Amino acid sequence: MDQPDPRVADLGFARVDVDRAARTGDPEVVFGAGKTPDQVVAILRALHERPPERAVLATRVATEALDVVAEALPGAHVERLARAVTLGPLPPARGTVAVVAAGTSDAPVAAEAALTIAVHGAAVDRIDDVGVAGIHRLLAVRERLDAADCLVVVAGMEGALPSVVGGLSGVPLVAVPTSVGYGASLGGIAALLTMLTSCAPGVTVVNIDNGYGAGVHAARVARQSVPR
Amino acid sequence: MDQPDPRVADLGFARVDVDRAARTGDPEVVFGAGKTPDQVVAILRALHERPPERAVLATRVATEALDVVAEALPGAHVERLARAVTLGPLPPARGTVAVVAAGTSDAPVAAEAALTIAVHGAAVDRIDDVGVAGIHRLLAVRERLDAADCLVVVAGMEGALPSVVGGLSGVPLVAVPTSVGYGASLGGIAALLTMLTSCAPGVTVVNIDNGYGAGVHAARVARQSVPR
Amino acid sequence: MDQPDPRVADLGFARVDVDRAARTGDPEVVFGAGKTPDQVVAILRALHERPPERAVLATRVATEALDVVAEALPGAHVERLARAVTLGPLPPARGTVAVVAAGTSDAPVAAEAALTIAVHGAAVDRIDDVGVAGIHRLLAVRERLDAADCLVVVAGMEGALPSVVGGLSGVPLVAVPTSVGYGASLGGIAALLTMLTSCAPGVTVVNIDNGYGAGVHAARVARQSVPR
Amino acid sequence: MDQPDPRVADLGFARVDVDRAARTGDPEVVFGAGKTPDQVVAILRALHERPPERAVLATRVATEALDVVAEALPGAHVERLARAVTLGPLPPARGTVAVVAAGTSDAPVAAEAALTIAVHGAAVDRIDDVGVAGIHRLLAVRERLDAADCLVVVAGMEGALPSVVGGLSGVPLVAVPTSVGYGASLGGIAALLTMLTSCAPGVTVVNIDNGYGAGVHAARVARQSVPR
Amino acid sequence: MDQPDPRVADLGFARVDVDRAARTGDPEVVFGAGKTPDQVVAILRALHERPPERAVLATRVATEALDVVAEALPGAHVERLARAVTLGPLPPARGTVAVVAAGTSDAPVAAEAALTIAVHGAAVDRIDDVGVAGIHRLLAVRERLDAADCLVVVAGMEGALPSVVGGLSGVPLVAVPTSVGYGASLGGIAALLTMLTSCAPGVTVVNIDNGYGAGVHAARVARQSVPR
Amino acid sequence: MDQPDPRVADLGFARVDVDRAARTGDPEVVFGAGKTPDQVVAILRALHERPPERAVLATRVATEALDVVAEALPGAHVERLARAVTLGPLPPARGTVAVVAAGTSDAPVAAEAALTIAVHGAAVDRIDDVGVAGIHRLLAVRERLDAADCLVVVAGMEGALPSVVGGLSGVPLVAVPTSVGYGASLGGIAALLTMLTSCAPGVTVVNIDNGYGAGVHAARVARQSVPR
Amino acid sequence: MDQPDPRVADLGFARVDVDRAARTGDPEVVFGAGKTPDQVVAILRALHERPPERAVLATRVATEALDVVAEALPGAHVERLARAVTLGPLPPARGTVAVVAAGTSDAPVAAEAALTIAVHGAAVDRIDDVGVAGIHRLLAVRERLDAADCLVVVAGMEGALPSVVGGLSGVPLVAVPTSVGYGASLGGIAALLTMLTSCAPGVTVVNIDNGYGAGVHAARVARQSVPR
Amino acid sequence: MDQPDPRVADLGFARVDVDRAARTGDPEVVFGAGKTPDQVVAILRALHERPPERAVLATRVATEALDVVAEALPGAHVERLARAVTLGPLPPARGTVAVVAAGTSDAPVAAEAALTIAVHGAAVDRIDDVGVAGIHRLLAVRERLDAADCLVVVAGMEGALPSVVGGLSGVPLVAVPTSVGYGASLGGIAALLTMLTSCAPGVTVVNIDNGYGAGVHAARVARQSVPR
Repeated sequence: MDQPDPRVADLGFARVDVDRAARTGDPEVVFGAGKTPDQVVAILRALHERPPERAVLATRVATEALDVVAEALPGAHVERLARAVTLGPLPPARGTVAVVAAGTSDAPVAAEAALTIAVHGAAVDRIDDVGVAGIHRLLAVRERLDAADCLVVVAGMEGALPSVVGGLSGVPLVAVPTSVGYGASLGGIAALLTMLTSCAPGVTVVNIDNGYGAGVHAARVARQSVPR
Repeated sequence: MDQPDPRVADLGFARVDVDRAARTGDPEVVFGAGKTPDQVVAILRALHERPPERAVLATRVATEALDVVAEALPGAHVERLARAVTLGPLPPARGTVAVVAAGTSDAPVAAEAALTIAVHGAAVDRIDDVGVAGIHRLLAVRERLDAADCLVVVAGMEGALPSVVGGLSGVPLVAVPTSVGYGASLGGIAALLTMLTSCAPGVTVVNIDNGYGAGVHAARVARQSVPR
Repeated sequence: MDQPDPRVADLGFARVDVDRAARTGDPEVVFGAGKTPDQVVAILRALHERPPERAVLATRVATEALDVVAEALPGAHVERLARAVTLGPLPPARGTVAVVAAGTSDAPVAAEAALTIAVHGAAVDRIDDVGVAGIHRLLAVRERLDAADCLVVVAGMEGALPSVVGGLSGVPLVAVPTSVGYGASLGGIAALLTMLTSCAPGVTVVNIDNGYGAGVHAARVARQSVPR
Repeated sequence: MDQPDPRVADLGFARVDVDRAARTGDPEVVFGAGKTPDQVVAILRALHERPPERAVLATRVATEALDVVAEALPGAHVERLARAVTLGPLPPARGTVAVVAAGTSDAPVAAEAALTIAVHGAAVDRIDDVGVAGIHRLLAVRERLDAADCLVVVAGMEGALPSVVGGLSGVPLVAVPTSVGYGASLGGIAALLTMLTSCAPGVTVVNIDNGYGAGVHAARVARQSVPR
Repeated sequence: MDQPDPRVADLGFARVDVDRAARTGDPEVVFGAGKTPDQVVAILRALHERPPERAVLATRVATEALDVVAEALPGAHVERLARAVTLGPLPPARGTVAVVAAGTSDAPVAAEAALTIAVHGAAVDRIDDVGVAGIHRLLAVRERLDAADCLVVVAGMEGALPSVVGGLSGVPLVAVPTSVGYGASLGGIAALLTMLTSCAPGVTVVNIDNGYGAGVHAARVARQSVPR
Repeated sequence: MDQPDPRVADLGFARVDVDRAARTGDPEVVFGAGKTPDQVVAILRALHERPPERAVLATRVATEALDVVAEALPGAHVERLARAVTLGPLPPARGTVAVVAAGTSDAPVAAEAALTIAVHGAAVDRIDDVGVAGIHRLLAVRERLDAADCLVVVAGMEGALPSVVGGLSGVPLVAVPTSVGYGASLGGIAALLTMLTSCAPGVTVVNIDNGYGAGVHAARVARQSVPR
Repeated sequence: MDQPDPRVADLGFARVDVDRAARTGDPEVVFGAGKTPDQVVAILRALHERPPERAVLATRVATEALDVVAEALPGAHVERLARAVTLGPLPPARGTVAVVAAGTSDAPVAAEAALTIAVHGAAVDRIDDVGVAGIHRLLAVRERLDAADCLVVVAGMEGALPSVVGGLSGVPLVAVPTSVGYGASLGGIAALLTMLTSCAPGVTVVNIDNGYGAGVHAARVARQSVPR
Repeated sequence: MDQPDPRVADLGFARVDVDRAARTGDPEVVFGAGKTPDQVVAILRALHERPPERAVLATRVATEALDVVAEALPGAHVERLARAVTLGPLPPARGTVAVVAAGTSDAPVAAEAALTIAVHGAAVDRIDDVGVAGIHRLLAVRERLDAADCLVVVAGMEGALPSVVGGLSGVPLVAVPTSVGYGASLGGIAALLTMLTSCAPGVTVVNIDNGYGAGVHAARVARQSVPR
């Protein structure tokens, strides 16, 4: 450990893994929760420098930190609804992910997923407000579902949307439960259990409100898919 | 307490409330779980005698007890799938309840609900195997949903069916989660939470596998509805 | 999807389903939680316009948003205890729902249920402070229970009231657990479990604090009941 | 530890505390769960010998072990419903405990409580089948509640009975949840939470199905009460 | 319901049960949580008036409300640590309850229990800071435990104190889990489960932080005990 | 509903959806849990007939039913470890899925996943016994991980394997928690939570023991991937 | 992977890690749960051969498998209470671990811990039946606690023993919750939470019933301790 | 209790146990949570005086209290990241504990552990940012793990790090779950369960975020270890 490891950027308060792109082909990402605005800026800068030709992403950035980032890094793209930031040029898109959201309240999570997908090199088709209590809205977009290389389906409350979507289409599907709801929704646990026990085959699930994780998986699938 | 209370039938091992019909208009019912076959027979007999002109119902009767009842009470109607027994003539039906079930494994709970509804004086329309992963099956029966006075919607696993049905129709709806599933279905808890957090307005819920409770509520609603 | 769908009102930040009345016979409703005051105003306006002859309802509106709505929509009826707003004339009432509440702390949920019932076209009979620890108060109103077409029974803490009411009357009953309590009440989970496992037959249950959902179900039942 | 401790009886497979009577005034008790029939017999014998003039109690004795005990210890009193055994003369009774049970299925737990109370030196008044869904049965026995020195109230399913009893009477009350029920009763957790969150003041609670623990507490209270 | 019921005080925002003393022998009590300072004052006044010769109690009063009460009701005794208020003369004490607390952080709950006991007519012996991790402190007060008519044992974190106390003494014991702790203490659930599963016989339990409930039970037991 | 729907096969006890291949491109599947051996045979036959040129799959078939199937359907391929059966020719494989299992006890779930993948048209590379407590075993197969089009990672107990694999490789990954373990593994819940909260980006998760669901997702991803 | 890895023994049904001794200094261990008797025998043989001069251990071996092992491996030491087997000579003991158990029902877990400690090279001092409800038994053995290099404290039900022991002695302590108990003990969860939230500093905890894990940790600590 | 007990320091608001060093060899410690800044200062002073030659420790001190302590006790060492304070000279270090942390967000808990270890008389080797998703960072420090006398392994989110470390090294290991994470991490419960069910033998666990408890155990182990 005497020699500095080129795969690690030592910022004093953190030793950042800058080797992930080599291992996984994905961009570097900052998990902003619990970090000070200055720490977010510092890590974004460090990651952006090695190398600068590909976008880095920061997620779960607090509102106050978004303001600091916007001022400190004029080149950054700040997306407030998604509570996320990108720095550097987006990669060209290969393949398409449809991001399907049940209700208006699920929009922040869907936005995080969409931005993540773009940063990870795939195109996004947004389909909003297609909750299962008005099933005609979903049936109307069936062809867009089938045209995607991967689906990210975002829903809170009872989280039933992935089951219906998964019965309509055979495209690989990642379900994202959100913490939207109250009482027996248990902060998103109800939607999480719904998605895990879906009777539609092949539904996979990520953590509550984890638009980022769903986006990474979906972009990887889309990038490697045979173009249609 | 010195005088025998005419509202109570004392069987030695139990003091049975035989006043419920007067208070609620419903038939008398035996909860068979945890009772010996002989106890089920004795309570059915006691309830049937006061008065004999209306059916009594026994639910959650063990297989072995069903056999004993069938032999001891030749006039009884034994329904094995529902694990239930009726004794005495069914009342004339007023109004109709549609009992909608998601999958084949939900059939026992749906059967318990259906028999309960009949004993409580309403007609039943059974709609089976209309799970949300094949939504075309449900859309095909939309008119039957709207024609009912009340809906009982039975589903296990993720329990999403009531949300979709509740979005298609404004008929009063009772959802019944079943214990069908494994792992994260947690013995029916997942379906229960799904139904409680449904984004479709007006969905009410009963206990896991409680076809009887849903049937009582639905029959009461149907009986008092204005004929169409 | 090129043609605007007449069943959807596109407000930019949300695509609102304005077809529900046609499908279910119920008024349009705004779920206010998580929406900005301006969004609540905008959606209320949009829903009110198509068509204006029937009331629309907004529930779970934050205190601050209630103030904004009161100023922006002078015709609105703002009910602070229920954290709810109506806009437009109430429909004529068919049938009656008795809203029964256990304690003073349950009043906001009971008020949400009562307003929902009125907006959905049924009359309301409020019965307050009849908790089971002073059972004489409940026994005194027994006739009012039996005179209703549907009962909404609201209780927090241990949530035992629906079991006692359900034993006294055969009127269809919807139980609403509230989050009133502390410690082992687990934010309303204790009351919810109590109501789901009630030994009184036919008790149906909605989510914790969901006065709205109970009101929708009860109003539908009351509206379709044979007048007495 | 070289000297044998007179407060401990060493049986080889167990070192039994025979000092409890001196510390607490209560009889010695064997917890039969997980013990072989022979172990139950051996411990009962050892406890009975020091001293023989007061009854010892064994609880949670398996059916098979009850048979062995009945044969090996002819002087034992075996109570099958309670799954319990006593050996030796019961003490004279001081004070009275009313054991109140909601339903027939709660009888084994009520029987365990009643036997425990008798062994611990108090009289028992059994009041059965007074569930809250038929409240008239409970109101009819109100004077017997007030005449007791302590109340043990046993209920499964939603466990609402202690709240109603606690509102009717100021006698010290111990509530016992039972595991009777299914689904959302969660093996007795629902009844336990109900009792812990009771709106009736002064309700104390023991573990699920723990008739023994409630009996010990109630007998202690009754024994030390001023005679009426 | 046309005649005003003398057992109920109608304050407009609440219908207060003023009949409890007649039914249970206990003083009237205000549960202050969720009530405005003015409501607490109004209810205290109403209860105090009928009749004024015995103290009334308000618990779970917010800090701000304590200030308002102190100013509005000069005769009130405000106890800040217990977040409680009494109004009117305390009754003479019959019997003694020892209130035993494990740690300094449990003091507010112990104080609530102690004040409740005094208002309900029994004397209090406070024993503080006798947690099980320094067992010599508890052993030193063993005689005071045995001298009491009832024990209230208050403990947070793992809540082991009642098991040790219950093994030392045969005095009736009520355990109060507190929400003191973090992580796996789950807001007091860990201590609650510990107390419910205590291997010491006769331990009864109340809700988390419910010093009031434990005090009511203990005072009732002490009041009716034979003087020593 | 008078005309038989060609998308449904009515077997009397079940109405089977035989349209799934058209909607999703996947083979038809029988969920064997809760079905009698004869029902499994009947459904396999019905699905195999329309059309016979592609394999159908039955999962979660009980041991007894496997025996009956083997005798009744000589052409069936019965795989006992996976508790699964296929009938009809497997499709040609496009793309490869690596099925990675942590321990010997996870083998049945891994086998179910592997068979599902083959029936859904992808090749399988099995990598067994590479638990994280002996990390050298996993590091030795790193190239096989990177060579796959999708990874299915199966682990019980603490379920840490997907986090380590997901840090080593950027291939799309589906994690399957198994119910292997005891105590705090809570029947697989511990592993499920571990996988949902993985710090490796892009890990998606299915229900406990759901090798089938993971296999469907992974095969879809592999089938559509650009050949290397 | 073409070359056989000398650190792995390939048995066909399992690839066994035989390198652990080199990495950790501990003996090889078979986790018997879920394995057939023949598999247990085969793995014990394989591990014993490399190298034979040190004992190997099998834990959680089913009763039937213990019989098969006893017959197939005459040199094996079968310990039925611990459900465990050792094969080969025990290592010389360095340091001492005191295994302290609360009740008779905890004996199997204590026995598993004790055997594990011996196989891992430390001496064992067994201290049984010292539950906290009879604290004098524990105080009597205080010197034996202080004489040990590490303590393993085993308790079920409320699991309070480690808190008391940890307050009496500064010796490193590992607590083992057992599944002994019923109802609110939740299969050992109550004891587990108790131990995790202990107010005695330095208490560490292992999984429910995991005598093996506690034994490994304790033996490692004892082996490396300075002899007294 | 008339004589002041020299083992207790009575501060009015608390009776502090100042005998712990005698019983366990550890320094005195203040648990700062829920205490006012003045109380923390007062207890630190009282403990420091008896005797002053060894450091005392305060943990979980709120930010505001840290400021007050820094001003009131100029000799105190305030460590803000750890939210802890020491007063008095640190003891000489015997043995070494390696404190291993998975991510930057785990730093406060790791710092609390490290300071605790130093105050309890052992040396600390800090190893940070070695999460399992970048396993090369951990493999690079393998020798430092083996050189320690005890390991404290700190991790949030899925908490997998102890399993991997425990597979690499046979040094005694204490795992500390942290509350870092969101959604299904359930405030640290997910990491806690992961560590309790670890497949690496000998992993022991403390409460969520309990760096202090882990530090006490580890320092005790290190202090008594044979020097290398």
